[in-house]
Amino acid sequence: MLEQLKQKVLEANLRLVEYKLVLFTWGNVSAIDREKGLVVIKPSGVDYEKMTADDMVVMNLDGEKVEGDLNPSSDTPTHLELYRSFPDIGGVAHTHSTFAVAFAQAAKDIPPYGTTHADFAYGAVPCTRDLTGEEIKYDYELNTGKVIVECFREKGIEPGRVPAVLVHSHGPFTWGKDAAEAAKNSAILEEVAKMAYLSETLGAQTASKNIQNKHYFRKHGEGAYYGQK
Amino acid sequence: MLEQLKQKVLEANLRLVEYKLVLFTWGNVSAIDREKGLVVIKPSGVDYEKMTADDMVVMNLDGEKVEGDLNPSSDTPTHLELYRSFPDIGGVAHTHSTFAVAFAQAAKDIPPYGTTHADFAYGAVPCTRDLTGEEIKYDYELNTGKVIVECFREKGIEPGRVPAVLVHSHGPFTWGKDAAEAAKNSAILEEVAKMAYLSETLGAQTASKNIQNKHYFRKHGEGAYYGQK
Amino acid sequence: MLEQLKQKVLEANLRLVEYKLVLFTWGNVSAIDREKGLVVIKPSGVDYEKMTADDMVVMNLDGEKVEGDLNPSSDTPTHLELYRSFPDIGGVAHTHSTFAVAFAQAAKDIPPYGTTHADFAYGAVPCTRDLTGEEIKYDYELNTGKVIVECFREKGIEPGRVPAVLVHSHGPFTWGKDAAEAAKNSAILEEVAKMAYLSETLGAQTASKNIQNKHYFRKHGEGAYYGQK
Amino acid sequence: MLEQLKQKVLEANLRLVEYKLVLFTWGNVSAIDREKGLVVIKPSGVDYEKMTADDMVVMNLDGEKVEGDLNPSSDTPTHLELYRSFPDIGGVAHTHSTFAVAFAQAAKDIPPYGTTHADFAYGAVPCTRDLTGEEIKYDYELNTGKVIVECFREKGIEPGRVPAVLVHSHGPFTWGKDAAEAAKNSAILEEVAKMAYLSETLGAQTASKNIQNKHYFRKHGEGAYYGQK
Repeated sequence: MLEQLKQKVLEANLRLVEYKLVLFTWGNVSAIDREKGLVVIKPSGVDYEKMTADDMVVMNLDGEKVEGDLNPSSDTPTHLELYRSFPDIGGVAHTHSTFAVAFAQAAKDIPPYGTTHADFAYGAVPCTRDLTGEEIKYDYELNTGKVIVECFREKGIEPGRVPAVLVHSHGPFTWGKDAAEAAKNSAILEEVAKMAYLSETLGAQTASKNIQNKHYFRKHGEGAYYGQK
Repeated sequence: MLEQLKQKVLEANLRLVEYKLVLFTWGNVSAIDREKGLVVIKPSGVDYEKMTADDMVVMNLDGEKVEGDLNPSSDTPTHLELYRSFPDIGGVAHTHSTFAVAFAQAAKDIPPYGTTHADFAYGAVPCTRDLTGEEIKYDYELNTGKVIVECFREKGIEPGRVPAVLVHSHGPFTWGKDAAEAAKNSAILEEVAKMAYLSETLGAQTASKNIQNKHYFRKHGEGAYYGQK
Repeated sequence: MLEQLKQKVLEANLRLVEYKLVLFTWGNVSAIDREKGLVVIKPSGVDYEKMTADDMVVMNLDGEKVEGDLNPSSDTPTHLELYRSFPDIGGVAHTHSTFAVAFAQAAKDIPPYGTTHADFAYGAVPCTRDLTGEEIKYDYELNTGKVIVECFREKGIEPGRVPAVLVHSHGPFTWGKDAAEAAKNSAILEEVAKMAYLSETLGAQTASKNIQNKHYFRKHGEGAYYGQK
Repeated sequence: MLEQLKQKVLEANLRLVEYKLVLFTWGNVSAIDREKGLVVIKPSGVDYEKMTADDMVVMNLDGEKVEGDLNPSSDTPTHLELYRSFPDIGGVAHTHSTFAVAFAQAAKDIPPYGTTHADFAYGAVPCTRDLTGEEIKYDYELNTGKVIVECFREKGIEPGRVPAVLVHSHGPFTWGKDAAEAAKNSAILEEVAKMAYLSETLGAQTASKNIQNKHYFRKHGEGAYYGQK
């Protein structure tokens, strides 16, 4: 079942390697079939070179495996929580990309220092609060998802406008309309994080709200005029 | 029309990828045919792997599309303003290369820290002032070009001697006698910016005016003796 | 003798190059046959491109060459001391990888800043004390091993839980169940060190003990649930 | 004449590209035939991809061109001064490699922070004083060589023990027994400079004199035991 989606999820996972965002088996991408309510995700700890579309695991939104011989990524409950809470997203990616992790480990938002950021996200890419001992002890990966959702809700951020988050002490999750866009957003986030690191160590201020608005809305939303129709 | 120039502009755009200065569709290069008063520029948001010479868009200096099925780069009005105001340049390139962007986001000039810089540019590579709310709201890309021109005029910098600028909160534009040189200057600027970042965090001072003059003029202008005749 | 092990040690040495951890002939990997009490190690100062399995040198645990035409790596006595003192390890690797060396040269432990670290090691990767003049003058490489062992014993660190160390003013040694895992751990350590460098310069705190425990034990030990059975 | 030496000098120049030390035509390597008193050097400003052994230029030690259709590297007088003053060297290389330039632009020696450095050089890699206005105005490239020689003489450094220097506001020169070793030393210097940059920003101290001596002399000089006989 879902053979086409499995192929797309496989390819998006391989993109993480191509984008140089993952070392060994780190990182995972999933996608959802909203009509069927089923999620296809990378298996846990399998080498990227050996992975085939058939190795992809199918889960339902209750966290039950529907198809697949292998264990799904250990981060699966985080992905599922994001699909349940962010109804407009179609793909989720998770990496330990170097500069994004550095901000997560420093427990810092990535500030909107310039137009590269504003082309990608509307305002800072937030870093979640630290999970509590209880949240870590039981259902850790589910609670990771819940803390992400809480972060966006409390800060009033729309997941459609900021397609990325940093989990405290951990690293980034990104999303998009499908698996390919989620993976691509991981690559953009890493570049934005690298620029932010360099800017911050040079003493940067965030960009003006005017220029942030301009760059975000010339590329996203109704009045967008970047790219082709 | 301008088939040869389209081919050269295509190649210069592909060089940005080869020089590792662009991610995805970021960045654009153009060139001008001064006799005809026509500019050839990359289309907006098209993948570099799929782009052909025929996709290049021809514009006149009033900003009207003369030929081409695709939308020109959204930064086209900036390129056109540079061609109108800097009559000796033949090509313009724009990237979001990492270290140059870091200086732009920090709103800092790139100081002439050494001979690598002085081989490339005579004095600091300036960062423009921030655009005003009004300048951003209407004709943003045109005003970006105007702010660059104002920066060079007010600081008394000759665009023939400093073939690069940083736009505040945004990133670099470079130019040269043709599209290839404009792209090459983007690569040199990025390396110069990386060296400047490292030098600055080690506590560098700008190079002496004597050595700046020596390196600039042994390579540029009448008495130059670098390279072959 | 030990032809299969020689092949594996050769391959693990070549992995160091593939992982971009070594320049020229720097770095070395060894493995032990615990039943025979024999160690296979890379020869000293031989180009990676020319090295064959036959060039690998066989040593006994008393430091005597048992087989091989070439001199063993000058770091051989360090490897042997680790095999004698850490009875559960099967492979050892040594590199001068850039970020791990930076921490060693700064004489700093690599703090557990996040989950990438906790997936790899339980607590900080320690940096040894400086060797004394006497320890350097006589049996320097043997004493390097002894100082590593002392560091783990005095700090109460289990080598099975922290498969890496930084030698003061020098660089990293890593280990694992075999040569391949030792080499892989060198690659992970370098990435962890790079993340730690960036996090530290951004002002990071170490991750909570709760999340360190969670990530270490979801991947290692009895209750592990990362990967496939 | 000197066809074999031209081939070796060509290859050493191409190594600079392979080692990723040069951008475009930056950098140059030369070698000397001590018996004939002739130096073979790269031509100025020629693309590495198009360069052939026949393009190499032959100079005598008085700075006169003996053979070759092209202009020699503009840095030729610096190379010649090094050959005249350092009688034991057989090859010289000059690059603008990024981290070595950063130290040169910060006018700082590269301190001996660890064993990677001590394996390469005995003590700090010195940075010269700034050239005076007069020294820059007339015979700039010759005076660059003289300032290097003065630096080694005044600080009592043997060029056989420290095969590299940083020229103030400029960048590194390295040398060795032949062109290949000079180029290789440029690669090692860049790695040592990168490690030093990272160590310094982490707050490193120089390594103890004991360990510096140990590593330098286990690899160089009479009692060396690194590598094969």
